[in-house]
Amino acid sequence: MGEFELIRNFFAAAPCAQGGEGVALGIGDDCALLAAAPGEQLAISTDTLVAGVHFADPCDPFLLGQRSLAVAVSDLAAMGAAPVAFTLALTLPTVEADWLQAYANGLSAMAQSCGVRLIGGDTTRGPLTLTMTVFGRVPAGQALTRSGARPGDLLCVGGELGNGAGALPLVLGQRSADPEITEPLLAHYWSPQPQLALGQALRGKASAAMDISDGLLADCGHIAAASAVGLLIESEKLPMSRALLSFLGENGARSAALSGGDDYVLVFTLPEAELAPLLAAGWPVHVLGRVVAGQGVVLLDAEGRDITPSTRGYQHFRETP
Amino acid sequence: MGEFELIRNFFAAAPCAQGGEGVALGIGDDCALLAAAPGEQLAISTDTLVAGVHFADPCDPFLLGQRSLAVAVSDLAAMGAAPVAFTLALTLPTVEADWLQAYANGLSAMAQSCGVRLIGGDTTRGPLTLTMTVFGRVPAGQALTRSGARPGDLLCVGGELGNGAGALPLVLGQRSADPEITEPLLAHYWSPQPQLALGQALRGKASAAMDISDGLLADCGHIAAASAVGLLIESEKLPMSRALLSFLGENGARSAALSGGDDYVLVFTLPEAELAPLLAAGWPVHVLGRVVAGQGVVLLDAEGRDITPSTRGYQHFRETP
Repeated sequence: MGEFELIRNFFAAAPCAQGGEGVALGIGDDCALLAAAPGEQLAISTDTLVAGVHFADPCDPFLLGQRSLAVAVSDLAAMGAAPVAFTLALTLPTVEADWLQAYANGLSAMAQSCGVRLIGGDTTRGPLTLTMTVFGRVPAGQALTRSGARPGDLLCVGGELGNGAGALPLVLGQRSADPEITEPLLAHYWSPQPQLALGQALRGKASAAMDISDGLLADCGHIAAASAVGLLIESEKLPMSRALLSFLGENGARSAALSGGDDYVLVFTLPEAELAPLLAAGWPVHVLGRVVAGQGVVLLDAEGRDITPSTRGYQHFRETP
Repeated sequence: MGEFELIRNFFAAAPCAQGGEGVALGIGDDCALLAAAPGEQLAISTDTLVAGVHFADPCDPFLLGQRSLAVAVSDLAAMGAAPVAFTLALTLPTVEADWLQAYANGLSAMAQSCGVRLIGGDTTRGPLTLTMTVFGRVPAGQALTRSGARPGDLLCVGGELGNGAGALPLVLGQRSADPEITEPLLAHYWSPQPQLALGQALRGKASAAMDISDGLLADCGHIAAASAVGLLIESEKLPMSRALLSFLGENGARSAALSGGDDYVLVFTLPEAELAPLLAAGWPVHVLGRVVAGQGVVLLDAEGRDITPSTRGYQHFRETP
């Protein structure tokens, strides 16, 4: 048995490959099998992380395991899908048992937290690259897409913005700070919590949704384009963490919240009548602005002046994508 | 818009991303959506190909497009699943329009031939790596697994063996030969035809099945282990192409047929009563041997002597996985 076949057996025995509703056949055959329920659709998303491009190499394999799965599962949250399963295509330059064990532990921790089961994949030799494909269930016709925003809807986010970008200088070792700053920011970076429950709660309520991976302005641009509407964002309303404000100051924090990536909180549009019941039920909904007729994204200051920055894109870890 | 976002738009417009039954939402949102039909299961398989490990770099991008998809879809054939869709995670060192166009053309040709639609994926910068995840539908409980072989069943394959391994010295430029040899072997290597129709015809008939990617002996070993049975193979019964026999001679061809990889024909076990109707219906079924009580794989010569080779594994393009 080759070492890569041993790795397959190792993952088949890992906690993340056990249990899971809706999985009819897991690791070990030519295909995995997922049960299909009448009236449901299967939501599918694929994300690749390349060493040296999307994460520093070397880095802590446990944290990488957590983060690599969370980033992918966040796309299920964005569709309002209930998480089911994932596959892992793992390309490794060398086989190191300690690395694999720590990576699998991080993966298992996040899989348990998200309610997904590892059902298959591939293990190959080559430059360190991770491709996750995630699967979720959603009632037919109820998935949250990017294309349903209508003028008059509110523009909302599901949590604090900018923490991912704020953490980056800490992750890269370019800056240091006190633990009350570094701990929440690094926790957000390495162990983002996909907003799965919020996404499912927004089914039949939100008119459009996605998760913020490229930064608020850039991702709002995707909703605006897919829905053929304009979006107005009030810069005074951005929810930001105390740690981010302490670390970067108000201007720096605002910039991270607007253009930083890796937030993995949901941005969505909501008919106004849906807001009060969601708030009353305790869901984290922060109103940032409004959908208007037109196109593109406009950022407004407290006096209603257009202060949209000219560059909206966010450069991931080193380079886009 | 960054160049990698342009690539996403490029693939969204490619022929392989159009049409397709059962696809409720294709490329462009956080997730794709597949329709779920009552009483069906979704079969899922992931395959990674790394440049320099699983294929020579550089190589013809059109041929790579064909081959990379065929290799993955072959796992759907092995489960008896009807093909539906696939995702592509493409990691590229540089963006070259000609390369991408040729790759997408090859992908589209194979996608059309197999009846699968590209529904999503990811495009990233890094060392050239392709990860395909393929999706198919199968009636619940009718998937062909590796674990159902029973003593007394026939051991069968769906076509000629050894062509993939026979082609390898041609692919690598290590040998040359006349066109009547090189053309069929190279065609098999670069454009293997997943046995999708045969796989579906074997539902409810074959007791176990898989596709041959690691070589007949190694893959029979997987069926024997998963089914907890022994398999007897009669070496005189191996179906081999005229091109392979001409190129490698009888001994070389037999060795390629037994231990060569990349055949992508189905190997399956069949209760004896199922054989005649399948043959009468014109399905390509070649009986190689029999399932027995016991364990492992035994190769027999014409006189029934055990001639099992000591090394069964096949070294893929350069090194195993």
